[in-house]
Amino acid sequence: MNDYETLLRRRRSVREYQDRQAPPDLVREIIRETCLAPSAMNGQPWRFSIVSNREKIKQLSDESKRNLLSDLEADPSSPLKRYVDILRDPGFNVFYNAPCVVYICGPSGLGSLDVDCALAACYFMFAAAARNLGTCWIGLGAHLRDPAILKDLRIAGDLQPVAPIILGYPKEIPEVPERIEPVILGILE
Amino acid sequence: MNDYETLLRRRRSVREYQDRQAPPDLVREIIRETCLAPSAMNGQPWRFSIVSNREKIKQLSDESKRNLLSDLEADPSSPLKRYVDILRDPGFNVFYNAPCVVYICGPSGLGSLDVDCALAACYFMFAAAARNLGTCWIGLGAHLRDPAILKDLRIAGDLQPVAPIILGYPKEIPEVPERIEPVILGILE
Repeated sequence: MNDYETLLRRRRSVREYQDRQAPPDLVREIIRETCLAPSAMNGQPWRFSIVSNREKIKQLSDESKRNLLSDLEADPSSPLKRYVDILRDPGFNVFYNAPCVVYICGPSGLGSLDVDCALAACYFMFAAAARNLGTCWIGLGAHLRDPAILKDLRIAGDLQPVAPIILGYPKEIPEVPERIEPVILGILE
Repeated sequence: MNDYETLLRRRRSVREYQDRQAPPDLVREIIRETCLAPSAMNGQPWRFSIVSNREKIKQLSDESKRNLLSDLEADPSSPLKRYVDILRDPGFNVFYNAPCVVYICGPSGLGSLDVDCALAACYFMFAAAARNLGTCWIGLGAHLRDPAILKDLRIAGDLQPVAPIILGYPKEIPEVPERIEPVILGILE
Protein backbone atom coordinates (compact mmCIF):
# COMPACT_ATOMS: atom_id res chain seq x y z
CA MET A 1 0.00 0.00 0.00
CA ASN A 2 1.52 3.28 -1.14
CA ASP A 3 -0.22 6.53 -0.44
CA TYR A 4 0.18 8.78 -3.50
CA GLU A 5 0.63 11.95 -1.45
CA THR A 6 3.51 10.26 0.40
CA LEU A 7 5.01 9.14 -2.92
CA LEU A 8 4.91 12.72 -4.17
CA ARG A 9 7.21 13.67 -1.33
CA ARG A 10 9.37 10.56 -1.67
CA ARG A 11 9.92 10.91 -5.45
CA ARG A 12 12.94 13.20 -5.29
CA SER A 13 16.00 13.48 -7.50
CA VAL A 14 18.43 11.32 -5.54
CA ARG A 15 22.17 11.66 -6.16
CA GLU A 16 23.58 9.82 -3.13
CA TYR A 17 23.10 6.10 -2.85
CA GLN A 18 23.83 3.26 -0.49
CA ASP A 19 26.39 0.75 -1.68
CA ARG A 20 23.99 -2.02 -2.65
CA GLN A 21 22.02 -3.05 -5.73
CA ALA A 22 18.27 -3.24 -6.07
CA PRO A 23 17.35 -6.92 -6.63
CA PRO A 24 17.09 -7.63 -10.40
CA ASP A 25 13.51 -8.89 -10.00
CA LEU A 26 12.52 -5.59 -8.41
CA VAL A 27 14.04 -3.69 -11.35
CA ARG A 28 12.01 -5.83 -13.76
CA GLU A 29 8.88 -5.17 -11.70
CA ILE A 30 9.53 -1.42 -11.93
CA ILE A 31 9.99 -1.70 -15.69
CA ARG A 32 6.76 -3.68 -16.01
CA GLU A 33 4.88 -0.96 -14.14
CA THR A 34 6.61 1.71 -16.23
CA CYS A 35 4.98 0.19 -19.31
CA LEU A 36 1.56 1.27 -17.98
CA ALA A 37 2.47 4.83 -19.00
CA PRO A 38 0.39 6.44 -21.73
CA SER A 39 2.04 7.04 -25.11
CA ALA A 40 1.16 8.80 -28.34
CA MET A 41 -1.36 6.62 -30.20
CA ASN A 42 -0.62 3.92 -27.60
CA GLY A 43 2.62 3.23 -29.48
CA GLN A 44 4.53 2.01 -26.38
CA PRO A 45 7.85 2.60 -28.17
CA TRP A 46 10.00 2.27 -25.03
CA ARG A 47 12.80 -0.24 -24.63
CA PHE A 48 15.13 -0.66 -21.65
CA SER A 49 18.79 -1.40 -21.11
CA ILE A 50 19.99 -2.04 -17.58
CA VAL A 51 23.58 -1.46 -16.40
CA SER A 52 24.50 -2.44 -12.87
CA ASN A 53 28.25 -2.80 -13.32
CA ARG A 54 30.15 0.13 -11.83
CA GLU A 55 33.04 -0.09 -14.25
CA LYS A 56 30.66 -0.07 -17.24
CA ILE A 57 28.74 2.84 -15.71
CA LYS A 58 32.02 4.78 -15.41
CA GLN A 59 32.73 4.04 -19.10
CA LEU A 60 29.26 5.31 -20.05
CA SER A 61 29.87 8.47 -18.06
CA ASP A 62 33.24 9.01 -19.77
CA GLU A 63 31.75 8.40 -23.23
CA SER A 64 28.92 10.86 -22.65
CA LYS A 65 31.28 13.52 -21.22
CA ARG A 66 33.63 13.13 -24.19
CA ASN A 67 30.78 13.65 -26.67
CA LEU A 68 29.36 16.60 -24.76
CA LEU A 69 32.78 18.28 -24.73
CA SER A 70 33.22 17.71 -28.45
CA ASP A 71 29.72 19.20 -29.05
CA LEU A 72 30.72 22.16 -26.93
CA GLU A 73 33.90 22.66 -28.94
CA ALA A 74 31.83 22.69 -32.13
CA ASP A 75 29.37 25.21 -30.65
CA PRO A 76 31.01 27.18 -27.82
CA SER A 77 27.83 29.19 -27.16
CA SER A 78 25.80 26.03 -26.42
CA PRO A 79 23.92 25.97 -23.08
CA LEU A 80 26.30 23.10 -22.22
CA LYS A 81 28.98 25.66 -21.43
CA ARG A 82 27.79 25.92 -17.83
CA TYR A 83 28.96 22.31 -17.42
CA VAL A 84 32.40 22.67 -18.95
CA ASP A 85 34.31 22.45 -15.67
CA ILE A 86 32.63 19.29 -14.39
CA LEU A 87 32.76 17.70 -17.85
CA ARG A 88 36.53 18.25 -17.92
CA ASP A 89 36.97 16.88 -14.39
CA PRO A 90 38.05 13.22 -14.78
CA GLY A 91 36.78 12.52 -11.25
CA PHE A 92 33.22 13.59 -12.04
CA ASN A 93 30.85 10.74 -12.84
CA VAL A 94 27.66 12.04 -14.47
CA PHE A 95 25.84 9.13 -12.81
CA TYR A 96 27.02 10.16 -9.33
CA ASN A 97 28.48 6.67 -8.74
CA ALA A 98 24.96 5.24 -8.54
CA PRO A 99 24.90 1.42 -8.49
CA CYS A 100 22.56 1.08 -11.48
CA VAL A 101 21.52 2.99 -14.62
CA VAL A 102 18.48 2.12 -16.71
CA TYR A 103 18.41 3.58 -20.23
CA ILE A 104 14.94 4.20 -21.63
CA CYS A 105 15.35 4.05 -25.41
CA GLY A 106 13.25 4.09 -28.55
CA PRO A 107 13.32 4.43 -32.34
CA SER A 108 15.03 7.65 -33.38
CA GLY A 109 12.65 8.41 -36.26
CA LEU A 110 9.56 8.60 -34.03
CA GLY A 111 8.20 12.15 -33.65
CA SER A 112 6.79 11.49 -30.18
CA LEU A 113 9.87 9.65 -28.89
CA ASP A 114 11.04 12.24 -26.34
CA VAL A 115 7.57 12.72 -24.95
CA ASP A 116 6.77 8.99 -24.80
CA CYS A 117 10.06 8.25 -23.04
CA ALA A 118 9.50 11.14 -20.61
CA LEU A 119 6.09 9.71 -19.66
CA ALA A 120 7.75 6.31 -19.16
CA ALA A 121 10.49 7.96 -17.09
CA CYS A 122 7.85 9.56 -14.86
CA TYR A 123 6.18 6.19 -14.28
CA PHE A 124 9.58 4.61 -13.68
CA MET A 125 10.45 7.19 -11.02
CA PHE A 126 7.13 6.70 -9.19
CA ALA A 127 7.38 2.90 -9.46
CA ALA A 128 10.86 3.08 -7.92
CA ALA A 129 9.74 5.46 -5.16
CA ALA A 130 6.86 3.08 -4.35
CA ARG A 131 9.55 0.46 -3.64
CA ASN A 132 11.70 2.78 -1.53
CA LEU A 133 14.20 3.27 -4.33
CA GLY A 134 15.60 6.59 -5.45
CA THR A 135 16.07 7.80 -9.03
CA CYS A 136 17.37 10.74 -11.00
CA TRP A 137 17.08 11.38 -14.75
CA ILE A 138 20.63 12.11 -15.90
CA GLY A 139 20.33 14.17 -19.08
CA LEU A 140 24.12 14.45 -19.30
CA GLY A 141 24.37 10.65 -19.58
CA ALA A 142 22.42 10.19 -22.81
CA HIS A 143 25.16 11.16 -25.25
CA LEU A 144 26.44 7.76 -26.36
CA ARG A 145 27.85 7.36 -29.89
CA ASP A 146 30.62 4.76 -29.74
CA PRO A 147 29.19 1.79 -31.67
CA ALA A 148 30.96 -0.70 -29.39
CA ILE A 149 29.35 0.86 -26.32
CA LEU A 150 25.89 0.96 -27.89
CA LYS A 151 26.32 -2.65 -28.97
CA ASP A 152 27.28 -3.59 -25.42
CA LEU A 153 23.99 -2.04 -24.22
CA ARG A 154 22.10 -3.79 -27.07
CA ILE A 155 20.95 -0.38 -28.30
CA ALA A 156 21.01 -1.35 -31.97
CA GLY A 157 19.47 -0.43 -35.32
CA ASP A 158 17.43 2.76 -35.16
CA LEU A 159 17.17 2.74 -31.35
CA GLN A 160 18.63 5.61 -29.38
CA PRO A 161 18.97 6.30 -25.66
CA VAL A 162 16.59 9.03 -24.46
CA ALA A 163 16.32 8.89 -20.68
CA PRO A 164 19.16 7.45 -18.55
CA ILE A 165 17.82 7.03 -15.03
CA ILE A 166 19.98 6.14 -12.06
CA LEU A 167 18.47 3.80 -9.51
CA GLY A 168 19.36 2.68 -6.02
CA TYR A 169 18.64 2.90 -2.32
CA PRO A 170 18.96 6.54 -1.27
CA LYS A 171 21.32 7.54 1.51
CA GLU A 172 18.57 10.00 2.35
CA ILE A 173 15.52 11.55 0.71
CA PRO A 174 16.41 15.15 -0.20
CA GLU A 175 14.01 17.96 0.65
CA VAL A 176 11.69 19.23 -2.07
CA PRO A 177 13.61 22.12 -3.69
CA GLU A 178 11.69 25.33 -3.79
CA ARG A 179 8.99 25.51 -6.44
CA ILE A 180 8.01 28.70 -8.19
CA GLU A 181 4.34 29.62 -7.81
CA PRO A 182 2.27 27.99 -10.56
CA VAL A 183 1.86 30.40 -13.47
CA ILE A 184 -1.67 30.32 -14.87
CA LEU A 185 -1.53 32.41 -18.01
CA GLY A 186 -5.21 32.60 -18.75
CA ILE A 187 -8.60 31.23 -17.76
CA LEU A 188 -11.26 31.18 -20.46
CA GLU A 189 -14.62 30.40 -18.91
CA MET B 1 -5.75 8.90 0.93
CA ASN B 2 -4.98 7.55 -2.54
CA ASP B 3 -3.39 4.18 -3.00
CA TYR B 4 -0.85 4.46 -5.84
CA GLU B 5 -1.62 1.02 -7.25
CA THR B 6 -5.30 2.03 -7.48
CA LEU B 7 -4.32 5.30 -9.16
CA LEU B 8 -2.31 3.35 -11.74
CA ARG B 9 -5.52 1.64 -12.79
CA ARG B 10 -7.61 4.78 -12.55
CA ARG B 11 -5.27 6.93 -14.66
CA ARG B 12 -6.65 6.04 -18.07
CA SER B 13 -7.03 8.05 -21.25
CA VAL B 14 -10.63 9.21 -20.86
CA ARG B 15 -12.54 10.43 -23.92
CA GLU B 16 -16.12 10.41 -22.59
CA TYR B 17 -17.08 12.89 -19.92
CA GLN B 18 -20.06 13.81 -17.79
CA ASP B 19 -21.65 17.15 -18.56
CA ARG B 20 -20.22 19.10 -15.60
CA GLN B 21 -17.11 21.11 -14.87
CA ALA B 22 -14.46 20.35 -12.29
CA PRO B 23 -14.57 23.16 -9.70
CA PRO B 24 -11.99 25.86 -10.59
CA ASP B 25 -10.30 25.50 -7.20
CA LEU B 26 -9.77 21.80 -7.83
CA VAL B 27 -8.16 22.58 -11.19
CA ARG B 28 -5.80 25.01 -9.46
CA GLU B 29 -4.98 22.36 -6.85
CA ILE B 30 -4.12 19.90 -9.64
CA ILE B 31 -1.90 22.49 -11.31
CA ARG B 32 -0.16 23.20 -8.02
CA GLU B 33 0.59 19.49 -7.56
CA THR B 34 1.71 19.27 -11.21
CA CYS B 35 4.46 21.75 -10.40
CA LEU B 36 6.09 19.13 -8.14
CA ALA B 37 7.27 17.36 -11.30
CA PRO B 38 11.01 17.16 -11.90
CA SER B 39 12.45 19.22 -14.76
CA ALA B 40 15.80 19.56 -16.49
CA MET B 41 18.09 21.56 -14.20
CA ASN B 42 14.99 22.23 -12.05
CA GLY B 43 13.99 24.83 -14.65
CA GLN B 44 10.21 24.47 -14.01
CA PRO B 45 9.47 26.07 -17.40
CA TRP B 46 5.76 25.09 -17.43
CA ARG B 47 2.91 27.58 -17.73
CA PHE B 48 -0.80 26.80 -17.89
CA SER B 49 -3.78 28.10 -19.79
CA ILE B 50 -7.24 26.83 -18.82
CA VAL B 51 -10.22 26.74 -21.19
CA SER B 52 -13.57 25.64 -19.83
CA ASN B 53 -15.82 27.28 -22.40
CA ARG B 54 -17.24 24.76 -24.86
CA GLU B 55 -17.53 27.24 -27.70
CA LYS B 56 -13.88 28.28 -27.27
CA ILE B 57 -12.82 24.64 -27.07
CA LYS B 58 -14.60 23.98 -30.37
CA GLN B 59 -12.72 26.95 -31.89
CA LEU B 60 -9.41 25.54 -30.64
CA SER B 61 -10.24 22.17 -32.15
CA ASP B 62 -11.12 23.78 -35.50
CA GLU B 63 -7.93 25.85 -35.48
CA SER B 64 -5.73 22.82 -34.75
CA LYS B 65 -7.48 20.69 -37.40
CA ARG B 66 -7.08 23.47 -39.99
CA ASN B 67 -3.34 23.70 -39.32
CA LEU B 68 -2.85 19.94 -39.33
CA LEU B 69 -4.62 19.67 -42.70
CA SER B 70 -2.48 22.43 -44.14
CA ASP B 71 0.66 20.65 -42.85
CA LEU B 72 -0.58 17.47 -44.47
CA GLU B 73 -1.14 19.26 -47.76
CA ALA B 74 2.46 20.52 -47.65
CA ASP B 75 3.77 17.02 -46.85
CA PRO B 76 1.32 14.33 -48.01
CA SER B 77 3.55 11.51 -46.73
CA SER B 78 3.41 12.82 -43.15
CA PRO B 79 2.31 10.33 -40.45
CA LEU B 80 -0.69 12.66 -40.07
CA LYS B 81 -2.24 11.11 -43.14
CA ARG B 82 -3.89 8.42 -41.02
CA TYR B 83 -6.01 11.21 -39.52
CA VAL B 84 -7.08 12.86 -42.74
CA ASP B 85 -10.69 11.62 -42.61
CA ILE B 86 -11.40 12.71 -39.05
CA LEU B 87 -9.57 16.01 -39.58
CA ARG B 88 -11.83 16.75 -42.56
CA ASP B 89 -14.97 15.80 -40.62
CA PRO B 90 -16.49 19.09 -39.36
CA GLY B 91 -18.32 17.15 -36.62
CA PHE B 92 -15.11 15.76 -35.11
CA ASN B 93 -13.85 17.66 -32.08
CA VAL B 94 -10.23 16.71 -31.29
CA PHE B 95 -11.06 17.35 -27.63
CA TYR B 96 -13.96 14.87 -27.68
CA ASN B 97 -16.34 17.56 -26.37
CA ALA B 98 -14.60 17.46 -22.99
CA PRO B 99 -15.73 20.27 -20.65
CA CYS B 100 -12.22 21.61 -20.02
CA VAL B 101 -8.80 21.75 -21.70
CA VAL B 102 -5.61 22.75 -19.90
CA TYR B 103 -2.69 23.75 -22.13
CA ILE B 104 0.74 23.09 -20.64
CA CYS B 105 3.06 25.56 -22.36
CA GLY B 106 6.64 26.78 -22.19
CA PRO B 107 9.33 28.81 -23.97
CA SER B 108 9.89 27.51 -27.51
CA GLY B 109 13.68 27.94 -27.43
CA LEU B 110 14.20 25.57 -24.51
CA GLY B 111 15.87 22.29 -25.52
CA SER B 112 14.18 20.31 -22.76
CA LEU B 113 10.72 21.83 -23.29
CA ASP B 114 8.95 18.72 -24.61
CA VAL B 115 10.40 16.51 -21.94
CA ASP B 116 9.71 18.98 -19.10
CA CYS B 117 6.11 19.45 -20.24
CA ALA B 118 5.65 15.68 -20.59
CA LEU B 119 6.80 15.17 -17.00
CA ALA B 120 4.37 17.90 -15.92
CA ALA B 121 1.62 16.23 -17.98
CA CYS B 122 2.28 12.94 -16.20
CA TYR B 123 1.96 14.63 -12.80
CA PHE B 124 -1.17 16.45 -13.98
CA MET B 125 -2.80 13.19 -15.05
CA PHE B 126 -2.05 11.50 -11.71
CA ALA B 127 -3.16 14.57 -9.73
CA ALA B 128 -6.45 14.54 -11.64
CA ALA B 129 -6.93 10.78 -11.17
CA ALA B 130 -6.31 11.22 -7.43
CA ARG B 131 -9.35 13.56 -7.46
CA ASN B 132 -11.56 11.21 -9.49
CA LEU B 133 -11.09 13.26 -12.62
CA GLY B 134 -10.23 11.86 -16.04
CA THR B 135 -7.70 13.23 -18.52
CA CYS B 136 -6.30 12.60 -21.97
CA TRP B 137 -3.33 14.24 -23.65
CA ILE B 138 -4.63 15.45 -27.02
CA GLY B 139 -1.61 15.68 -29.31
CA LEU B 140 -3.84 16.76 -32.21
CA GLY B 141 -4.94 19.82 -30.24
CA ALA B 142 -1.56 21.52 -29.89
CA HIS B 143 -1.37 23.07 -33.37
CA LEU B 144 -2.43 26.62 -32.66
CA ARG B 145 -1.04 29.44 -34.82
CA ASP B 146 -3.72 32.11 -35.14
CA PRO B 147 -2.32 35.06 -33.16
CA ALA B 148 -5.80 36.07 -31.99
CA ILE B 149 -6.42 32.61 -30.55
CA LEU B 150 -3.03 32.44 -28.85
CA LYS B 151 -3.64 35.91 -27.43
CA ASP B 152 -7.01 34.78 -26.11
CA LEU B 153 -5.22 31.93 -24.27
CA ARG B 154 -2.54 34.39 -23.05
CA ILE B 155 0.11 32.25 -24.77
CA ALA B 156 2.33 35.16 -25.74
CA GLY B 157 5.94 36.01 -26.54
CA ASP B 158 8.11 32.93 -26.95
CA LEU B 159 5.61 30.62 -25.23
CA GLN B 160 4.12 27.73 -27.17
CA PRO B 161 1.52 25.10 -26.32
CA VAL B 162 3.06 21.65 -25.81
CA ALA B 163 0.57 19.41 -24.02
CA PRO B 164 -3.18 20.07 -24.28
CA ILE B 165 -4.90 17.90 -21.69
CA ILE B 166 -8.64 17.41 -21.48
CA LEU B 167 -10.12 17.20 -18.00
CA GLY B 168 -13.46 16.22 -16.56
CA TYR B 169 -15.49 13.64 -14.69
CA PRO B 170 -15.37 10.39 -16.67
CA LYS B 171 -18.56 8.67 -17.78
CA GLU B 172 -16.63 5.51 -17.01
CA ILE B 173 -13.03 4.44 -16.47
CA PRO B 174 -11.90 2.56 -19.60
CA GLU B 175 -10.10 -0.76 -19.24
CA VAL B 176 -6.30 -0.78 -19.48
CA PRO B 177 -5.57 -1.40 -23.19
CA GLU B 178 -3.30 -4.32 -23.83
CA ARG B 179 0.35 -3.67 -23.12
CA ILE B 180 3.19 -5.28 -25.03
CA GLU B 181 5.59 -7.27 -22.87
CA PRO B 182 8.37 -5.02 -21.56
CA VAL B 183 11.37 -5.21 -23.89
CA ILE B 184 14.63 -5.35 -21.94
CA LEU B 185 17.35 -5.01 -24.56
CA GLY B 186 20.33 -5.81 -22.39
CA ILE B 187 21.45 -6.36 -18.82
CA LEU B 188 25.07 -5.51 -18.03
CA GLU B 189 25.95 -6.85 -14.60
